[in-house]
Amino acid sequence: MLSKLLDPESVAVVGASPKQGSVGYVILENLVTRFGKKVFPINPKYDEVELWGRVIKFYRSISEVPDPVDVVVIATPAPTVPKVLEEAGIKGVKAAVIVSSGFSEAGNTELENWVKAVAKQYGVRVLGPNCIGVYNAYSGFDTVFLPAERAGRPPPGPLALISQSGAVAAAIMDWAARRRLGLGFLVNYGNKADITETELLEGFAADDRVKVITIYIEGFKYPGEARQFLETAKKIAAKKPVVAYKAGRGGAAQRAVKSHTAAMAGSYEMYHGLFQQAGVIEASSVREMFDMAKALAMQPTPRGRRTLVLTDSGGMGIQAVDALEALGLEVPEIPESVAKELKRELLPFAAVANPVDVTGSTTDEHYKIVLDALLPTPLFDMALVVTLMQVPGLTKNLADYLIDAKKYGKPIVVVNFGGSELVQRFEEVLEGNGIPVYPTPDRAAKALWALYKYGEIRKRL
Amino acid sequence: MLSKLLDPESVAVVGASPKQGSVGYVILENLVTRFGKKVFPINPKYDEVELWGRVIKFYRSISEVPDPVDVVVIATPAPTVPKVLEEAGIKGVKAAVIVSSGFSEAGNTELENWVKAVAKQYGVRVLGPNCIGVYNAYSGFDTVFLPAERAGRPPPGPLALISQSGAVAAAIMDWAARRRLGLGFLVNYGNKADITETELLEGFAADDRVKVITIYIEGFKYPGEARQFLETAKKIAAKKPVVAYKAGRGGAAQRAVKSHTAAMAGSYEMYHGLFQQAGVIEASSVREMFDMAKALAMQPTPRGRRTLVLTDSGGMGIQAVDALEALGLEVPEIPESVAKELKRELLPFAAVANPVDVTGSTTDEHYKIVLDALLPTPLFDMALVVTLMQVPGLTKNLADYLIDAKKYGKPIVVVNFGGSELVQRFEEVLEGNGIPVYPTPDRAAKALWALYKYGEIRKRL
Repeated sequence: MLSKLLDPESVAVVGASPKQGSVGYVILENLVTRFGKKVFPINPKYDEVELWGRVIKFYRSISEVPDPVDVVVIATPAPTVPKVLEEAGIKGVKAAVIVSSGFSEAGNTELENWVKAVAKQYGVRVLGPNCIGVYNAYSGFDTVFLPAERAGRPPPGPLALISQSGAVAAAIMDWAARRRLGLGFLVNYGNKADITETELLEGFAADDRVKVITIYIEGFKYPGEARQFLETAKKIAAKKPVVAYKAGRGGAAQRAVKSHTAAMAGSYEMYHGLFQQAGVIEASSVREMFDMAKALAMQPTPRGRRTLVLTDSGGMGIQAVDALEALGLEVPEIPESVAKELKRELLPFAAVANPVDVTGSTTDEHYKIVLDALLPTPLFDMALVVTLMQVPGLTKNLADYLIDAKKYGKPIVVVNFGGSELVQRFEEVLEGNGIPVYPTPDRAAKALWALYKYGEIRKRL
Repeated sequence: MLSKLLDPESVAVVGASPKQGSVGYVILENLVTRFGKKVFPINPKYDEVELWGRVIKFYRSISEVPDPVDVVVIATPAPTVPKVLEEAGIKGVKAAVIVSSGFSEAGNTELENWVKAVAKQYGVRVLGPNCIGVYNAYSGFDTVFLPAERAGRPPPGPLALISQSGAVAAAIMDWAARRRLGLGFLVNYGNKADITETELLEGFAADDRVKVITIYIEGFKYPGEARQFLETAKKIAAKKPVVAYKAGRGGAAQRAVKSHTAAMAGSYEMYHGLFQQAGVIEASSVREMFDMAKALAMQPTPRGRRTLVLTDSGGMGIQAVDALEALGLEVPEIPESVAKELKRELLPFAAVANPVDVTGSTTDEHYKIVLDALLPTPLFDMALVVTLMQVPGLTKNLADYLIDAKKYGKPIVVVNFGGSELVQRFEEVLEGNGIPVYPTPDRAAKALWALYKYGEIRKRL
């Protein structure tokens, strides 16, 4: 069922509207202009309207739609929702996305219970209410009622996001779009009257296009949910990385969680323990979650924790070592004999320790020499490479050498800091070829840590 | 003397060259095209050369220069430097920037000692050798031998950077230029044969254009330096915020520091204690250093630690509270009576606790209502405002309301996440009017923490 919700062939939009700026207008525009499959606008006030350069036929009700409908998107006022859902049930629709608000989050718990009862009776699974719903970058199925000028749409790619907060999800969308981060799927489940994060997790586990699942969670709502999540996540994490960020940790934050999603924030320690047990990698912020997810989607897991630091800036190398050591990763020294050999091929002032500092007078080739000499050896499990492109001797060809070093089967992440065109193009080429790039050494170190951590999780589960 | 080094009226460049791509070429280009004052290229190989659309006159030696020279930039091979420095001393030049490398960093300690002796004999103060020197965004005095395509030049502004690493400084320049961050001065002192970070600190303390001093340090080199730094920093920090990042903390990192700058990294705890005592605010990364410096340059210090969180996203509000609490700042509840009053003017679903969640259905006016109701009261010392512009009701006018709220004299920082044009323009307006903007709640919280911390430091010193 969830595959239909996340990737439908036909969608009806109840409350679709030709009135610019309305929720029903934005959703209709999303679907008509970008969803490659069947769309049925439902609104008894309209018959045929010309919109976006084509004639759009409106239906009076779902029952009038001639074809089968996979998903109904409901954007009508809260009191009308149970009836609309009933019609959808009678039509045989299997999933509904209720974007309308005015349910339990506004104190109308009875109305929400009514929706639940109807859903149960007709076997319609419900996402929401009070949610922004689903964004599927592959098919263009998109119930997010925010126009693209406000919330950009990210390109297809290996990451999926399950978010308890609609606004956080929308902000992440916009940010991912700007950075061309491949966020292929995004779901916000709002009040969680029916479909839970655990089920969504299963849905993404079953989709081969999803390589890494990210979860933004404030707190579970119902008894037994934590246990369910644990059991499911454990099975999934053995095959696919799951990264989670739990918001609401301290006292005031938990008060805020309660007021925001009526979730039982519970003690933060409970969630921390749960993630540990389930093999879910925990992030300490949204940004860190995507830093780690990007690496997990692009790179293999390392066999151990021994990290080579290769840099053209001594200072950046030191910062990288600081960050790696703070995370419990190792930065072992290079054996004298190996260092001696390598020193002959580098600049006289290059420091062949760990970090290997090829210095600001480096050329692209020196990076290649070091990677070829050290990555294939059993001395190192992975590499953090600092490429400050501000030094005069580096060119975009360096990207080819780094990409070529993927052949050694060991994780490589890159630190690149600055803002010039050269820096940006270099990053695009690397990320387009599966090497994640970070602006600061601590973020790159955390990405390597996530790869190491996931390797450990796989061994354990 | 240091004011002459940082802001000279006339500069001689020994080793200036019309050969594109050479160090002497880039420095000459910087100065001829952007430095508004007198430049004297020194190179016996040339007489008059047409460059950058004008005729450049070269001098055979410093002694031939008809006018007084404030600073000599030396970019000739290391063995020639003592003689050049002597000529400069005879000419009466008071400061030299030696960008040439090949001294103690390459094992040539004797040559460096010779330079020191000459400098002492003639009373020439020396920056370097082996440094990128000075960038002054106000006058365009710029000895950084990296072309602007590689390392962008930031606009004038209230921040100054003292960096032990040349490459880190160049990368920061490039990054600040891209973000239009007002980094008015930058100095890298290389081998530190003469001028130390402590003296540079004094130099920036004396310049009224500098509002916040940032320091990137790997380690002191000479006995007694730590004590000098402590005494000087203490005096300065009472008047002007100083933010420092110490690289090289763990064991492997200290090994790397030693190899990079021959500095005695010493135990990290020593530096941590030193900064504490001196009233220097410590950052845990370069990025954090500038996050804090930006806030310190734009905003007043708060009277206490009680923070109002105002948000249109419950989820972001929770993340903000998490971050604030983790830093020891307070997020007190709003008294019942005040909340009741305020609730009447907001949307029915708005949560008037702390965070105040105006919800995704907010308009610009709701932010104004909350700020006007709560910021002037004695309940709060400062505000963290989350403005996710992805929600439909917010416009760029919100910036005016936030800027207007500066009249309450309490620190305000903004969290804005996403990538659309609207988001970017909104940020530009805010930062142009003294309200710092951060992409994530943890970074904004740390900025408020820095303001609070600096308020405490001023009280103490």
